[in-house]
Amino acid sequence: MTRNLSRSPLAVDFPAMPVIAGVELAGGRAGFYAGERDDLLLMRFSPGTTCAGVFTRHGVGSAPVDWCQKQLRATGGRSVRAVVVNAGCANSFTGHAGAKAAERVATAAAKAVGARPREVMLASTGVIGVLLDDRKVTAALPAALAALTDRSWERAAGAIMTTDTFPKGAAALAHVDSHPVRIAGIAKGSGMIAPNMATMLAFVATDAAVEPRALQALVRLMTLRTFNSVTVDGDRSTNDTLLVFATGQSGAPPIAKANDPRLADFAIKLEAVLLDLAQQLVRDGEGASKFVKVSVSGAKSEASAAKIARTIAESPLVKTAFAGEDANWGRIVMAAGRADEPVRRERMSVAFGPLWAARDGHVVSDYSETAMSDYMKNAELEVRVEVGAGRASWTMWTCDLTKQYVAINGDYRS
Amino acid sequence: MTRNLSRSPLAVDFPAMPVIAGVELAGGRAGFYAGERDDLLLMRFSPGTTCAGVFTRHGVGSAPVDWCQKQLRATGGRSVRAVVVNAGCANSFTGHAGAKAAERVATAAAKAVGARPREVMLASTGVIGVLLDDRKVTAALPAALAALTDRSWERAAGAIMTTDTFPKGAAALAHVDSHPVRIAGIAKGSGMIAPNMATMLAFVATDAAVEPRALQALVRLMTLRTFNSVTVDGDRSTNDTLLVFATGQSGAPPIAKANDPRLADFAIKLEAVLLDLAQQLVRDGEGASKFVKVSVSGAKSEASAAKIARTIAESPLVKTAFAGEDANWGRIVMAAGRADEPVRRERMSVAFGPLWAARDGHVVSDYSETAMSDYMKNAELEVRVEVGAGRASWTMWTCDLTKQYVAINGDYRS
Repeated sequence: MTRNLSRSPLAVDFPAMPVIAGVELAGGRAGFYAGERDDLLLMRFSPGTTCAGVFTRHGVGSAPVDWCQKQLRATGGRSVRAVVVNAGCANSFTGHAGAKAAERVATAAAKAVGARPREVMLASTGVIGVLLDDRKVTAALPAALAALTDRSWERAAGAIMTTDTFPKGAAALAHVDSHPVRIAGIAKGSGMIAPNMATMLAFVATDAAVEPRALQALVRLMTLRTFNSVTVDGDRSTNDTLLVFATGQSGAPPIAKANDPRLADFAIKLEAVLLDLAQQLVRDGEGASKFVKVSVSGAKSEASAAKIARTIAESPLVKTAFAGEDANWGRIVMAAGRADEPVRRERMSVAFGPLWAARDGHVVSDYSETAMSDYMKNAELEVRVEVGAGRASWTMWTCDLTKQYVAINGDYRS
Repeated sequence: MTRNLSRSPLAVDFPAMPVIAGVELAGGRAGFYAGERDDLLLMRFSPGTTCAGVFTRHGVGSAPVDWCQKQLRATGGRSVRAVVVNAGCANSFTGHAGAKAAERVATAAAKAVGARPREVMLASTGVIGVLLDDRKVTAALPAALAALTDRSWERAAGAIMTTDTFPKGAAALAHVDSHPVRIAGIAKGSGMIAPNMATMLAFVATDAAVEPRALQALVRLMTLRTFNSVTVDGDRSTNDTLLVFATGQSGAPPIAKANDPRLADFAIKLEAVLLDLAQQLVRDGEGASKFVKVSVSGAKSEASAAKIARTIAESPLVKTAFAGEDANWGRIVMAAGRADEPVRRERMSVAFGPLWAARDGHVVSDYSETAMSDYMKNAELEVRVEVGAGRASWTMWTCDLTKQYVAINGDYRS
């Protein structure tokens, strides 16, 4: 069921990751895949670790997402001691039996790390509609427990991959009230590819001390500008999960409010880590050959700018034009116009990178097809759209739509 | 600039078309294409012909759409004497100069048919951002005028084609108060493919006598269930235009209100013609190999059902699964759930044609991959989704997403 896809041409190398005091990780083998590969991630956190979570707003949801949301509501995110993630089965659309299977995994993991079940977070990624065989997970827990180290980030990132072609990690150093703190995270996802192997998952940890309510407020806001501002194919999963853990082991003072000025540098660096991970999802977009930044300005509101940017970034005609290295500004205008948001035709402008194609509702007089074609050969592209209706702007990141995307997703499941 | 695409495997033959008293048509050559092909359509209507129009809600619009909307507002659709359509140039995003070019075409056509400019409707399809060379159109008008006949429907349908691989026509016989009336229409479009060659255009004529306000009310409502319920790639054009003309030459009594019971049979038949034309657009979807009916039931409202159906019908993952003949019901669940509309997971059911894949939130116990695979080999497919949140339903028609779609749209413009 694993696919031997070659590494994305847009891939980036796995970065050097810091040790985060209070965080241990291990990859393991639960056996959801036939071949020799990890498919289990166990993370253990020191007592007092706080947690914030953002989950799919998908109407169907899944057992592990339901579990996390329920426990975070119950505990307020004040204490999380472990997270267990499996690849190969999403445990989504599996009803009451799926919920029970998730609960058994949490209970077993809680026992293993010496915590209560509600202090264990869960995530699953893989086939929809197949009940999780929780015995596979629980049988693999002891070995994972024994393998925990504070340096296993890359193996951890590999264990949660499905159709990903490279492991995704990001890290940063920040300061809280002059105390250095560290941030590290991993993610997986390469387009929503259920029910084969689905889902965006991201797990980020820091040794800063942040009260759960403040952490939740930060993460929710940042998600809009990072994970919610990238798109591969517009589809989203029943299992999408972002969890951020703060162990408080750095010695930096605990921060209770999201708008505490001592948290400013941390907030900037955390957002950078989230954006880096989110962009890596696009870089691993199925079949992607171009990484494209879509910047919209002159919109009536940020929400309007975001909707226009998303409409452009998800338009099949825009994405196929990028695949064809075609500076097809007409398709950009078309997509911007069909977002059902205010635009002023006579003020619309479109640029590819540094090159204006159209300004104020007209093609530019010195339009050069040669210069445009040269620019479009780059693997990383930017398209800028000014819509002339106001002062708000938004940026989205997307990839192109290639024949390879269709080949990957048009294959039989079996 | 024309493409030699082979005829869609989902194509239907051009039907036998009736003569509509008061309607004459001619194809012509304005020379927007290098090769030998028609690219101009002239239709002439008898005095007293009423007209209803539905246009793109695209934020950018185009000069011919602006023209039609302005004149229909001015005249109330009480008298339209001609329509002039060109393929090869959309005259969109061309500012004041584009509006002037459109006006010159209308003025020349009005003179040719002995009418006022505001009695002339216009439509253009083709490259965005290129000013219409109206002299090409006006120079070709005399020959078109001389060629007018009441039987040129198929040539007319061919003249407005861009990337279409077959001409599209539909016709019906109806009765108004026991008087026979005829309905005939043509359309073009195969996915929104601007700025190469864009746009859905449809022109339908009847010899029934219907007051313009009643005709407008009927056509607006029917558009929701026909042209607005088909999708190829979710993109829409700056130039989309549907015009319906009623000559009143049948001898049937004139009808002033859309809800007049004498109009009931006519309304049913007109909607059938519009739906037939709309479905032919999907059958000619770029690269399409499957024609797919998406039926959603159990939604909270018709609007909710329509949004869920559209989300399924436009999901790249669903569409690539159809291309791969994969009965991938998990992707259907995923797409239904991400429409941000009420669904009840434990009551959701999915069927492919006669075969249930999931019922009430679970995969069916007698699920047969073999039976599913056999069904998916059909060129015409239906997927039914029950979402368990209410009693409303909606139907959309779409096609699959193939490598050929990417190839067609990823080519260079030049």
